[in-house]
Amino acid sequence: MIDSTAAGIRERLAEHRAGFDVRFAAYFDALAQRPLPCSDFVPECLGLLRDLSLRGGKRLRVALLHEAAGLVTADTPAGLDEAGLSIELLQTHGLVHDDIIDDSPTRRGGPSVHHAYRQRLPNTPHTALGLAVLAGDLAAFLSVQVLLEAKVPAALRLAMAEVQLATGADTVIGQILDLERDFHHLPDRAMLDAVSDHKTARYSVLAPLRLGLLAAGEDIAAHDARLRRYATLVGISGTLRDDYLDLFGDPEVLGKPAGSDLREGRRTYAVCAVLAAATPTERDTVEEALAAPDCPPDTVDAVRRIALRHGVDDRLREDILGTARAAAAEAASWRPHWRADAVAFFEHLPLWGAERTR
Amino acid sequence: MIDSTAAGIRERLAEHRAGFDVRFAAYFDALAQRPLPCSDFVPECLGLLRDLSLRGGKRLRVALLHEAAGLVTADTPAGLDEAGLSIELLQTHGLVHDDIIDDSPTRRGGPSVHHAYRQRLPNTPHTALGLAVLAGDLAAFLSVQVLLEAKVPAALRLAMAEVQLATGADTVIGQILDLERDFHHLPDRAMLDAVSDHKTARYSVLAPLRLGLLAAGEDIAAHDARLRRYATLVGISGTLRDDYLDLFGDPEVLGKPAGSDLREGRRTYAVCAVLAAATPTERDTVEEALAAPDCPPDTVDAVRRIALRHGVDDRLREDILGTARAAAAEAASWRPHWRADAVAFFEHLPLWGAERTR
Repeated sequence: MIDSTAAGIRERLAEHRAGFDVRFAAYFDALAQRPLPCSDFVPECLGLLRDLSLRGGKRLRVALLHEAAGLVTADTPAGLDEAGLSIELLQTHGLVHDDIIDDSPTRRGGPSVHHAYRQRLPNTPHTALGLAVLAGDLAAFLSVQVLLEAKVPAALRLAMAEVQLATGADTVIGQILDLERDFHHLPDRAMLDAVSDHKTARYSVLAPLRLGLLAAGEDIAAHDARLRRYATLVGISGTLRDDYLDLFGDPEVLGKPAGSDLREGRRTYAVCAVLAAATPTERDTVEEALAAPDCPPDTVDAVRRIALRHGVDDRLREDILGTARAAAAEAASWRPHWRADAVAFFEHLPLWGAERTR
Repeated sequence: MIDSTAAGIRERLAEHRAGFDVRFAAYFDALAQRPLPCSDFVPECLGLLRDLSLRGGKRLRVALLHEAAGLVTADTPAGLDEAGLSIELLQTHGLVHDDIIDDSPTRRGGPSVHHAYRQRLPNTPHTALGLAVLAGDLAAFLSVQVLLEAKVPAALRLAMAEVQLATGADTVIGQILDLERDFHHLPDRAMLDAVSDHKTARYSVLAPLRLGLLAAGEDIAAHDARLRRYATLVGISGTLRDDYLDLFGDPEVLGKPAGSDLREGRRTYAVCAVLAAATPTERDTVEEALAAPDCPPDTVDAVRRIALRHGVDDRLREDILGTARAAAAEAASWRPHWRADAVAFFEHLPLWGAERTR
């Protein structure tokens, strides 16, 4: 039986992460050994993808993958390594292009690939942009290619590739929705949930669940509705929490200044909740902040005070916890089907996440 | 026996194209029917991909695919339709991102996807850029996904997906090499050939050959060396011709002003041949043209006169014809293995292409 306390979950995550990071570094070592044309730029591109990939954070997706296999078997089934590599390469692809879309200078505590290229090619910024687009493209192709190299039966390789191609397409759709959202004055809850689901839940939760179960030999079509319910709820709860922390969190803990969503004009769950609760005059203050890329800390403070005045912080925390509890209840309902220790992990994970709102 | 005259090849191409274009439109019709979240931007993205895709030109790749199957069988094997869709969707992906990289306003007689988005979102050019990156990403995932939907045995779906993922990765590497090339004062022939091979030959010639033969049940690994030789030679001959036409071609026939490679600072086969032949003073003229995005027609004329003075035009035409003949000889050597009428197509195609230097 796993230890499902917060400390137990952290330990379990750290274990999955350590195993994976060794495997991921070995993947990039092998990639650099493939026959390539004589070039300086191609090894540089592979190096930037490697650096970004290996600066990865908690590797929560890899943990979900392993625990999903654990729903069916105590062994580590063949193909799980390649599935983990695929998940994290698809993540690298998404991060490289996301940082172009958002023009973000940093990612995971280092330069974004786009900005690394800009620093290397200060006189040709358009070439830097082009190379970053290409680096992201390469990661996308590699993320599916690695699945086809797994030493598992053809049917499993195909099924895993189908999952990741659908995941890639869904995530693009989520990114498009995310950009569309900010053209609405007050996007409704359905739109906010669709963004969370497509942009986050499908590749971060649903894909690892599907791949882990597939590798363990499970018929995933039979369980698709429950996997989707769980993934969607975890995605919404996690996005709510990130949006909450951006406005109410401690900048010291977050490692970035508060209010970055406001400054970037992003109509997140938290921003929309403030807009919905605000008086007309207060709403003008929020809209001014959303329209000003350099809005000063004072403006962020003013928006935060408006939110607190209307109890937006309390309602968001209730929402985060409510969706996390619904996700936990969904996982608890898996007990008749699957192994209890892995079910316990999926049950406690969303609650553990929901508690990190300080 | 096929008619291998120029008129016969044109007729054959037109036939492949007409059949494919109907199929491609039906693919986009079906795509628009898939369940999607409520959105304006997602259907818009699919519409832009459709418009660009259906504005396709000669569909030479689709013809190569069908003729490659014809090397083995007179029937149209199952899976060939999906292979054609995959080839052209990968092309769409490449064009969308290429037009971002080159900042091209037009493509195939209409706006590039990037510029179509800029026109729709004139106040948020960075969002327009982001949406174009995402549109290209979506086409990449769809290009492999369509192969997995083919009603053929799992082994064939896997083999075709492997081909297209390697092709996607190779083409990205070719694009990176293409950008790297222009940082060299005088890139050597090996570098120019590596760009042609990776950026053009592999997805335009090698992939259709491999996919067509796979669908027809051929063991492509046994023939890989001859497929590669042919593809590389056709790719080099075709790139040489395009580079030649950009400097020496008739702008009326090309539908674009001469010297666009010079204006964009691109060190193509033709530009490098002029640089290598020029006197130091003449070389300064060429380098000035390469460094000036708005270099006037007079400067292009001056570079052309330098080229003519040194016989660069004659040497390039010899080179185009020489590599085309070598490709034709390679195809002719396929007679013992494959069906004579399709072999004749592959034999005559490069010579037909090489003659279009007016």
